[in-house]
Amino acid sequence: MPNPSAAMLVIGDEILSGRTRDANMYHLAGRLTEHGIDLCEVRVIGDAPERIAETVRTLSSQYDHVFTSGGIGPTHDDMTADAVALAFDTPIDIRADAREILAQHYAASGRELNAARLRMARIPEGALLIDNPISAAPGFSLGNVHVMAGVPAIFAAMVASVLPGLTGGQPLISRTLRIERGEGDIAAILGALASDFDDLSMGSYPFQNDGVHGTNIVIRGTDPDQIERAAARLEEQIAKMS
Amino acid sequence: MPNPSAAMLVIGDEILSGRTRDANMYHLAGRLTEHGIDLCEVRVIGDAPERIAETVRTLSSQYDHVFTSGGIGPTHDDMTADAVALAFDTPIDIRADAREILAQHYAASGRELNAARLRMARIPEGALLIDNPISAAPGFSLGNVHVMAGVPAIFAAMVASVLPGLTGGQPLISRTLRIERGEGDIAAILGALASDFDDLSMGSYPFQNDGVHGTNIVIRGTDPDQIERAAARLEEQIAKMS
Repeated sequence: MPNPSAAMLVIGDEILSGRTRDANMYHLAGRLTEHGIDLCEVRVIGDAPERIAETVRTLSSQYDHVFTSGGIGPTHDDMTADAVALAFDTPIDIRADAREILAQHYAASGRELNAARLRMARIPEGALLIDNPISAAPGFSLGNVHVMAGVPAIFAAMVASVLPGLTGGQPLISRTLRIERGEGDIAAILGALASDFDDLSMGSYPFQNDGVHGTNIVIRGTDPDQIERAAARLEEQIAKMS
Repeated sequence: MPNPSAAMLVIGDEILSGRTRDANMYHLAGRLTEHGIDLCEVRVIGDAPERIAETVRTLSSQYDHVFTSGGIGPTHDDMTADAVALAFDTPIDIRADAREILAQHYAASGRELNAARLRMARIPEGALLIDNPISAAPGFSLGNVHVMAGVPAIFAAMVASVLPGLTGGQPLISRTLRIERGEGDIAAILGALASDFDDLSMGSYPFQNDGVHGTNIVIRGTDPDQIERAAARLEEQIAKMS
């Protein structure tokens, strides 16, 4: 059975303008791979509600899971919750349980739960809350769409809350071989190996460190024995070259 | 007149599996903003030729420019050039000028220009070459699609070659105000300001440094005077709060 598939949607003008370097894609990619969910596509778009809604709808229909990052804070540019509700034509309002979480958090820190902060208790009907152990305001899962914060520490904490509840497949295992030859020198060997082991994926990544010019070959798959056999054959053939 | 629009397409299984942290999106976003081209969307997809072709076609029809990163090396997993040719139903073959660039480079370094490396001279008919001052193998522009390498140093060099030839609009200017108040405390003021200055975009980014909890407000636009007026009004209103 193939692994479940996933897409990620990163939301925020600050990423597209180059002000902020996104950190969440790299984090999520690693966690999904460990969990046996295949990340197939990532999209980054700006803070525009209709655009967010349309993209969520598209990705939700194409993949088993959609993970979003960004746009769930208290300010006017935080539009993700309403956009996700719009995507599924679901009513959205301040929900009692989310409001209570915020009320306790702000009471404890002596800050005011004002109208702006209350926006963070707007949750689409039927959604499940995602725990936020850092700043309280929850994320949520609506159907197969998991809506999380953009601040990297909070995003990571929310991913840790959501993933254990999702059925994973076989974790992708990878083995990296460092080969001190140019990509072009080993391309023929590698291409033949890739077609002999068609359940595995073989990636080739040139490097140049301290004047040494070489290639990292990454063999990925779910069967450790098969990866071992492919790695052994590659090493044998590289050894024969010299 | 609005600025030209752009999309970026990052190609590579290694990004989606979490092995490699992409650096090219952040780089391109900053350079485009300086040049007055609006980056509207980024997509990340794997090394699958039909998927690449389909996505290139979609983005090329929706935006003034498309910039791709990755998949133009000598190995079997480098599929971008053929996929872009496929996207536009354009013939592709080894081109004499690209071959000559590679021949000189490999002759100078005493390495062999073998069949695998010759793949890097495959250029779709009618494309313009993009200079690669680092490892010679060129990128290319076909119509509004600019095909560049994934290795960050080479990607950056290719962006520097391409951008001066593209008509830009007004560079986006941004001004950041550091405010030592929570996002929720200033959200109402900020929302009102954003609707009064609807040519500007206002982003709100919470921070927590050395125990100080606050918000960076980023005001973006193309008219420096307007940005100055909005910043002055925001500062005045924040001062009144205390």
